[in-house]
Amino acid sequence: MSTESPEIAYEIVDRVGTITMQSSNRRNSLTVAFVKELGDLIKQANDDNRVGSILITGQEGAFSAGGDMSELFYPRLNGDEPYAQDDPYTGGLGLLSVDWTRLMRDSKPIVVAFNGYAVGGGMTFFLAADVLVASPKASFHFVFTQVGIVAEMCSTKYLPARVGFGRASELLLQARTIDGNEAKTIGLVDYLFDHDKLFDESLAIAKQIAKQPPSMLKMTKKLLDQNYLETDTDKVWKRESDALKNCWANPEHKEAINAFLEKRAPNFNDL
Amino acid sequence: MSTESPEIAYEIVDRVGTITMQSSNRRNSLTVAFVKELGDLIKQANDDNRVGSILITGQEGAFSAGGDMSELFYPRLNGDEPYAQDDPYTGGLGLLSVDWTRLMRDSKPIVVAFNGYAVGGGMTFFLAADVLVASPKASFHFVFTQVGIVAEMCSTKYLPARVGFGRASELLLQARTIDGNEAKTIGLVDYLFDHDKLFDESLAIAKQIAKQPPSMLKMTKKLLDQNYLETDTDKVWKRESDALKNCWANPEHKEAINAFLEKRAPNFNDL
Amino acid sequence: MSTESPEIAYEIVDRVGTITMQSSNRRNSLTVAFVKELGDLIKQANDDNRVGSILITGQEGAFSAGGDMSELFYPRLNGDEPYAQDDPYTGGLGLLSVDWTRLMRDSKPIVVAFNGYAVGGGMTFFLAADVLVASPKASFHFVFTQVGIVAEMCSTKYLPARVGFGRASELLLQARTIDGNEAKTIGLVDYLFDHDKLFDESLAIAKQIAKQPPSMLKMTKKLLDQNYLETDTDKVWKRESDALKNCWANPEHKEAINAFLEKRAPNFNDL
Repeated sequence: MSTESPEIAYEIVDRVGTITMQSSNRRNSLTVAFVKELGDLIKQANDDNRVGSILITGQEGAFSAGGDMSELFYPRLNGDEPYAQDDPYTGGLGLLSVDWTRLMRDSKPIVVAFNGYAVGGGMTFFLAADVLVASPKASFHFVFTQVGIVAEMCSTKYLPARVGFGRASELLLQARTIDGNEAKTIGLVDYLFDHDKLFDESLAIAKQIAKQPPSMLKMTKKLLDQNYLETDTDKVWKRESDALKNCWANPEHKEAINAFLEKRAPNFNDL
Repeated sequence: MSTESPEIAYEIVDRVGTITMQSSNRRNSLTVAFVKELGDLIKQANDDNRVGSILITGQEGAFSAGGDMSELFYPRLNGDEPYAQDDPYTGGLGLLSVDWTRLMRDSKPIVVAFNGYAVGGGMTFFLAADVLVASPKASFHFVFTQVGIVAEMCSTKYLPARVGFGRASELLLQARTIDGNEAKTIGLVDYLFDHDKLFDESLAIAKQIAKQPPSMLKMTKKLLDQNYLETDTDKVWKRESDALKNCWANPEHKEAINAFLEKRAPNFNDL
Repeated sequence: MSTESPEIAYEIVDRVGTITMQSSNRRNSLTVAFVKELGDLIKQANDDNRVGSILITGQEGAFSAGGDMSELFYPRLNGDEPYAQDDPYTGGLGLLSVDWTRLMRDSKPIVVAFNGYAVGGGMTFFLAADVLVASPKASFHFVFTQVGIVAEMCSTKYLPARVGFGRASELLLQARTIDGNEAKTIGLVDYLFDHDKLFDESLAIAKQIAKQPPSMLKMTKKLLDQNYLETDTDKVWKRESDALKNCWANPEHKEAINAFLEKRAPNFNDL
């Protein structure tokens, strides 16, 4: 299955829903309409049982130029308010809200392949995804204070979760830019691949995830979300314990372990 | 002092309680009986004032094969429930419960030397220990989703605590295997030593810990547990402040600082 | 502007308040009087709108010898209590309290350049700063248990925040010493520079921070403090959202983005 809009292409490859941002004239800048289309494709992949994981990438030199200057910044310089302000949770970002972060965390696993520059929101939009990959040609621009704003999209949680508190501080306070190599060194991304192999290698990661039983992937994401900052050890254990009981009773467990013992690929679709 | 069962050897070496798992026919797979014996040895070391720290390792090529397939997995494939289900907190893991994680955190410091493969629970059982060491021949198998379960033993807390949220996500969602070298690179283990020197070097770390005053080791572990995820700075400070006052009044403080100034080994046993 | 006491020199260089600890006979050991002078200089820099960021460093081979032995340790060996005990939050550290940690976090961004040895409190006093820099000649001495005390100054929070839970455990439990190179490798410091270039390179980082709009720097520090351990995604988003709204209405936003678009240096002082 494959769809293509002028802005975003979508195709299923070996149980991976691949989303390619390709609005080359806007360099994938984030307008409200663009983000809505992106979110709808993620939801579509989540509702499709032929899809086990999702891969998001860009095209040519740009991953995403970040918040759209014409829509988000210029009107405000003239004293205009670009979006309706009836939702108190948007922070003046239009329709965007915590629902986006929720979508990333409640979604099937998402691999993000940074193929070029990712500026401001063009990076923070994707920090709550599961696996981040870059090529040496990627660059990450922490421009927030430089344009007189602050980091958003829950990045003040997910950036230090990846790179530590000290590193997150220096990146944001200096409004610094780093390339793919440094992003790998400091742990912002989990993998670095040659630019020519970026898509194939990222797809291989997404395929490996898509082979796992869907229920256990969902539980794993939820357990990490709930437990990695949990101070109460009892709660940590109880959540894992409840999930394990769910596993033992789940037909996906039986299929997974039988396939493992029989050294064959599991099939979770017919359960 | 030295004891030896067919499954686990125990010996005190220079104030280090060394525990060697050696059930070679089961490759140290985790049965309920095996884990109970292991826990009893840790408790014995904790009750023995000749012991300042604990070292746990395996023998030959295996550290631990993880949850015992015959006891934990096969019965369930036939629809049987292997353990009594009267304890709602075990997650179907037999007698195991949050008490194990508590034991690791309340224990004298524990150094774990991964000498070979550590599969699933054979790794997560030990992630709440204090210092993790590996040789290049060690391997870490995040097989959970592959066998249709989820990570347990509070690893959804202690894995990201060691390697960060992103790295923990990709390891668990891909059901990936890494070797000792990569484990060191990503911070899963704190030290990597040549295989031939693994035991001696790990013992040296445990000895260095065993030289420190027992009360201050106990307080240090507790402060890290309580404070590393604490959002309230007042509470962080108050806990450290209370511990410091305890130190000033503790004879171990006087002995430690006198030994430090006199450049001699301290002796905390006769206090 | 420049002031100099026998103990600490202060000078403003290109919007950076540079603080040089220089009590060479005491090797910058932390007496109550010395810490008070240091804190007063930080407050002075915070109240001065010619200052955008702060750089703290030492002189010659010492960064700081840590808690002053004559004032803090020796009296206690004789059974004397060196400080009044009317403040229940000091932990027997004299006038020091959580106010110090608050000062570090509420201050304009602080870059710390470790030029030589930093022993115990001589390191932990500065772990709550924003950017940590070292030369290979720096050394970090986790001596706490060795002298019969525990780590303080909220370091049981900020040390694992920088280096992870496992690494923090082994450093504190072994009472280990590491040099600048290892500090960089494990993430305790964010940058390592040649010893001869340490001051200039650290100053360059502080200058880059000082170019950013003051309100956004303050909000960025606060968001990181509040959100990096926040489990409730709604709260994370709401805090960022509120800060963004503050930005859109703040004249510093307009000046920042105009300067950015006009490729000139912004000027926030005349707003």
